[in-house]
Amino acid sequence: MLINLINPNTSSSMTHCIGNAAQAVAAPDTQLRCVHPETGVASIEGYLDELVAATGVVEQVCQGEAAGCQAHIIACFGDPGLDAAREVAQAPVIGIAEAAMHTATLLGHRFSVVTSLCRTVAMTEHLLVKYGMEHQCSSVRAVDIAVLDLHNPESDAYRRILEACHKAVQQDKADAIVLGCAGMADLQKNLTHALGIPVIDGVASALGLAEMLIRCGLSTGKQGSYAPPLTKVYSGWARSLRR
Amino acid sequence: MLINLINPNTSSSMTHCIGNAAQAVAAPDTQLRCVHPETGVASIEGYLDELVAATGVVEQVCQGEAAGCQAHIIACFGDPGLDAAREVAQAPVIGIAEAAMHTATLLGHRFSVVTSLCRTVAMTEHLLVKYGMEHQCSSVRAVDIAVLDLHNPESDAYRRILEACHKAVQQDKADAIVLGCAGMADLQKNLTHALGIPVIDGVASALGLAEMLIRCGLSTGKQGSYAPPLTKVYSGWARSLRR
Amino acid sequence: MLINLINPNTSSSMTHCIGNAAQAVAAPDTQLRCVHPETGVASIEGYLDELVAATGVVEQVCQGEAAGCQAHIIACFGDPGLDAAREVAQAPVIGIAEAAMHTATLLGHRFSVVTSLCRTVAMTEHLLVKYGMEHQCSSVRAVDIAVLDLHNPESDAYRRILEACHKAVQQDKADAIVLGCAGMADLQKNLTHALGIPVIDGVASALGLAEMLIRCGLSTGKQGSYAPPLTKVYSGWARSLRR
Amino acid sequence: MLINLINPNTSSSMTHCIGNAAQAVAAPDTQLRCVHPETGVASIEGYLDELVAATGVVEQVCQGEAAGCQAHIIACFGDPGLDAAREVAQAPVIGIAEAAMHTATLLGHRFSVVTSLCRTVAMTEHLLVKYGMEHQCSSVRAVDIAVLDLHNPESDAYRRILEACHKAVQQDKADAIVLGCAGMADLQKNLTHALGIPVIDGVASALGLAEMLIRCGLSTGKQGSYAPPLTKVYSGWARSLRR
Amino acid sequence: MLINLINPNTSSSMTHCIGNAAQAVAAPDTQLRCVHPETGVASIEGYLDELVAATGVVEQVCQGEAAGCQAHIIACFGDPGLDAAREVAQAPVIGIAEAAMHTATLLGHRFSVVTSLCRTVAMTEHLLVKYGMEHQCSSVRAVDIAVLDLHNPESDAYRRILEACHKAVQQDKADAIVLGCAGMADLQKNLTHALGIPVIDGVASALGLAEMLIRCGLSTGKQGSYAPPLTKVYSGWARSLRR
Amino acid sequence: MLINLINPNTSSSMTHCIGNAAQAVAAPDTQLRCVHPETGVASIEGYLDELVAATGVVEQVCQGEAAGCQAHIIACFGDPGLDAAREVAQAPVIGIAEAAMHTATLLGHRFSVVTSLCRTVAMTEHLLVKYGMEHQCSSVRAVDIAVLDLHNPESDAYRRILEACHKAVQQDKADAIVLGCAGMADLQKNLTHALGIPVIDGVASALGLAEMLIRCGLSTGKQGSYAPPLTKVYSGWARSLRR
Repeated sequence: MLINLINPNTSSSMTHCIGNAAQAVAAPDTQLRCVHPETGVASIEGYLDELVAATGVVEQVCQGEAAGCQAHIIACFGDPGLDAAREVAQAPVIGIAEAAMHTATLLGHRFSVVTSLCRTVAMTEHLLVKYGMEHQCSSVRAVDIAVLDLHNPESDAYRRILEACHKAVQQDKADAIVLGCAGMADLQKNLTHALGIPVIDGVASALGLAEMLIRCGLSTGKQGSYAPPLTKVYSGWARSLRR
Repeated sequence: MLINLINPNTSSSMTHCIGNAAQAVAAPDTQLRCVHPETGVASIEGYLDELVAATGVVEQVCQGEAAGCQAHIIACFGDPGLDAAREVAQAPVIGIAEAAMHTATLLGHRFSVVTSLCRTVAMTEHLLVKYGMEHQCSSVRAVDIAVLDLHNPESDAYRRILEACHKAVQQDKADAIVLGCAGMADLQKNLTHALGIPVIDGVASALGLAEMLIRCGLSTGKQGSYAPPLTKVYSGWARSLRR
Repeated sequence: MLINLINPNTSSSMTHCIGNAAQAVAAPDTQLRCVHPETGVASIEGYLDELVAATGVVEQVCQGEAAGCQAHIIACFGDPGLDAAREVAQAPVIGIAEAAMHTATLLGHRFSVVTSLCRTVAMTEHLLVKYGMEHQCSSVRAVDIAVLDLHNPESDAYRRILEACHKAVQQDKADAIVLGCAGMADLQKNLTHALGIPVIDGVASALGLAEMLIRCGLSTGKQGSYAPPLTKVYSGWARSLRR
Repeated sequence: MLINLINPNTSSSMTHCIGNAAQAVAAPDTQLRCVHPETGVASIEGYLDELVAATGVVEQVCQGEAAGCQAHIIACFGDPGLDAAREVAQAPVIGIAEAAMHTATLLGHRFSVVTSLCRTVAMTEHLLVKYGMEHQCSSVRAVDIAVLDLHNPESDAYRRILEACHKAVQQDKADAIVLGCAGMADLQKNLTHALGIPVIDGVASALGLAEMLIRCGLSTGKQGSYAPPLTKVYSGWARSLRR
Repeated sequence: MLINLINPNTSSSMTHCIGNAAQAVAAPDTQLRCVHPETGVASIEGYLDELVAATGVVEQVCQGEAAGCQAHIIACFGDPGLDAAREVAQAPVIGIAEAAMHTATLLGHRFSVVTSLCRTVAMTEHLLVKYGMEHQCSSVRAVDIAVLDLHNPESDAYRRILEACHKAVQQDKADAIVLGCAGMADLQKNLTHALGIPVIDGVASALGLAEMLIRCGLSTGKQGSYAPPLTKVYSGWARSLRR
Repeated sequence: MLINLINPNTSSSMTHCIGNAAQAVAAPDTQLRCVHPETGVASIEGYLDELVAATGVVEQVCQGEAAGCQAHIIACFGDPGLDAAREVAQAPVIGIAEAAMHTATLLGHRFSVVTSLCRTVAMTEHLLVKYGMEHQCSSVRAVDIAVLDLHNPESDAYRRILEACHKAVQQDKADAIVLGCAGMADLQKNLTHALGIPVIDGVASALGLAEMLIRCGLSTGKQGSYAPPLTKVYSGWARSLRR
């Protein structure tokens, strides 16, 4: 199974971190294509960032399809470009936010999302409504650390994330934690040990879901809402989005 | 009052039609900047189209801000790029789908949306959920005519739209009709006469809402979810999106 | 454009204050008919007050229709008599609560309502459900000051309202504030300056929405839920409600 | 137990019919005060009718309290004046719409409402949302017969109501029927026999709920949303509403 | 009227306490069959406990039907076995959780549930969603006392429950309290006096609802979702569940 | 990986069929323990059937834990005993209804469920509400064939299921089909070919989800809602449920 693991931002170090998280849980017969868009934005912390990243996602989905990938993963917690990617691709597409949220509902009554910057909380809340998860999510907590500072020791990220998780458990009655940023994937193990409850990294979940879909022979329904884009000419930079 | 009326696709004829619809209802002291993106896609009928159009919307919002516009209107029923535009702009931004839906709730118990292609119904349903309008919307009906065929006499568009409206009234108990495509703006008058119930064109509604916000001195809250994009470098074509 | 601005209570000073708030944002071609019912209740702070006020609203809507008004505004945050007024009037009718809430959704991800007495919070929550605004409203906060004391310096109203707004922003993550009482209209400017986020007075919003509807030639759908009242005899005081 | 059974309209024949329906199911120790307002409207088929009727309900609640009633029933399916009555009364107040809907949820997975005029469907739908019953209600069907024609043999009411019930069972999968008008109370028995599923008349249900509340010593919570009206002067006809 | 009052656990003392609570509010013509399953579990504080108790409920419903009971009450706040009991019985079945919640909505804008162990909060939240009560419930608070310790003076149960009720009123704006455990029935009177707002014991409410259904001649709809179990052979211990 | 695949009914032929469906999609390193309860009911088509089956599920979960299973699957579309099983097990537990529904949301805008008997539709609708899937499900259609007749050629099952699927696509706008019975697993391939849209068998999906959870090292959160059952004595047949 060849799976296209797309980091929607342009940071090689994050692509590496995401690849590691996926590799650690991959099935023996799974191969990964770990990529990021050639150009775009180094981290995704707002609606404009998401918009730019989404075009990069589509570009990488197209390249992945050409390379024979059997599933695509969008490894940014806002699931940027998910609908467009489903429209473009023959193979199934999974966002790590939806992957993590669906996984969380299998493990407890309510989950909390712990994310990076406060300004992204609304984006997560939009997804919760879109995915029908309002009842299952008890809170979205932000630690207010920029994505690219998560691995900077001065940000004290681990301690502050752990503290937010503790509050989610004690005050919001969360049975499970969803990590709200692909850049937190490498903290999952330590947080799990410290908390004693499931901590869900969407990258790992999405990989498992992709493997499930491939083994089941399932892909996006292409006759209705996600029918292939109509044949039409795009002009300017967008020409590159149509093969 | 200078208002930036953005047609997100690249069809001059639709920009013209949209401009006319807005001009017809504008206040005496309102001036319009009617524009479309320089490059992109000629009509918007899917998620990929929307993604491309959204970048053009951001481009035109930035140009409109530089030109002194006091409000921005996104004149495509999917409201493409709305969140990113709110993040980027100082002036308020209104999508014609939200404008039409909010207006409809002021005029009846339930409204129906009548739109162009079936494949866009799901996009409208996403917006209904996002805007909290599920209870107020009784149905979304599509006539399955491509946007650019709406003004082609062979498409028989007026008759088919009227028929869909009649079904919405009789079968779905709609008190009002929302036109689900900016390209239907010029049909609003005739449909109103034929149906005897309010038929809402989002372009006209959005213009009125923009005037209202300007007169009230209101704009997007910029301290939380729609704070300006963080300072960061975009690479590739996206460089043009950061001033 | 002649717009019927109805203060549903019988306080001339509030009618004056509401008239000023509307006049300050009116279009050049807008004329106001600022009125209140001849009899009724001096302030509206409960369900019985609302019921009495609603009959006064209907009375003033009828008089306004006779006077040639092209739209009616119900300037009390509970929107008393809104459904009955829509049924009775040919011209469109707007309540200031719905006006403010719809406006708020154009300006931020979530808004908070700051209102007068605690006992009216449930009334606002009923409206939030009726209007489909539960997801968009982050909190309803009351300062527990009676409506007629808002302008009494001893009530310390401005400071207490500002404090509630600050809590709404910091604790409830509101992007915008909706003023939950027509009597707060004159505080809107100072609160906006102090808070730096949009503060929405429903009177001003409703006036803009009324102008929008008039310019667009839209009014209540009169074939279904808001069809004119059936011909029947009312007895007692209610005779005055049927022309 | 003395229970105040209020017909909100001024039709003596309906008061009689409602009284019979209640008497037929009353406990041995229950006494009824069957009344209607002295003035108002002969049948309730719209928002204005409801508003007028609501003031009559408050009047009769006050008189009933003075007469020692231990509970009040509002016997019109729109529950007109329910919130105001709860505010005014010390004893509990029950509307027949809420009574019938709550009862229906005890008897099946989904119920349908069968009501008189189409124009009242929206009023019922408002109540369904307010009472949290959307999931439990499968449809609201109207037979388009005016309330006062229900007992006119020429209206063919029984046959048309039975037909609507059959459609509710077969097409909408209703497990139970809620009669959407107090004037249908005397059809309940025959419909039950003909359909073989529970048919719920809100008058009977409300009486049972009132008896339950009295026996349990329960009444409206008077410290929050339904605290007694504040002391203030009402002018004009409304003076009669304040004791 | 003979009513089957089933304590789903095997504690005779709780059956006694529940019987007393029901007897205190029963109509003069009501007779109770107070029972508990012959085997099962002594208290119900989790999903497995509920499952075991549910089979005991079905057993007692069958015995009650044979004994001529005209209604069945499931006197445990999780309503264990309610759907199966409705399927099995000809007579109507009421759970005390649904009874208490429906009753609470007749008495205030919002209610809070005060329950025993924290681990049961999720079970109550499931019921709130199932019964459509999310909007009407302001909070579920647990005192973390095991069911069988509620009457142990060392548990300090009354004081801790009262404290939770006070928080529900002051912090969560509850107009009424629902007792979240049948074992709290005997505290209802004292709590009511201490709080001055309605405190609802589901056992008493359910008895009143059962009397209402019997007097109205209503029972579960047996043609759809609750049709009698299909004829089939159960093996093992379950054979006893089929007559 | 050893996975416990539990058929909750006692039909060996269905256990065999379910085992085949799972084996066909299992990862190379997956081993299955395909079992059914020793006693219980031969097919599950109602609430009482579910209750009996749920106790068998718990029995098999306990045996599976003892046998070293790393995940448990409940292979009946009603997910009987899911909450109790999560409480009892250390390893994660997945129901095939939730598995199929979550999978469907990854593949289209809306899915339809096609199930066996009409009487089980309400059970599925309860699950849709519990799992937050109302918006994503466009319809639940039943073919009214008993579970054990699905493989009886005289039932004409394949043709009738295919017809229901076609209606779901054309009338309900489903992008994907969820098979509402474990006994339909072997029809998935042919239906997929005939329809050209994804057809989801929950058994296969659940197996993939189980593999995902195991590879990610995730299991049920055991500190809150699903904490292990409290230590207490069960009497009668239920003694066997406590180890």
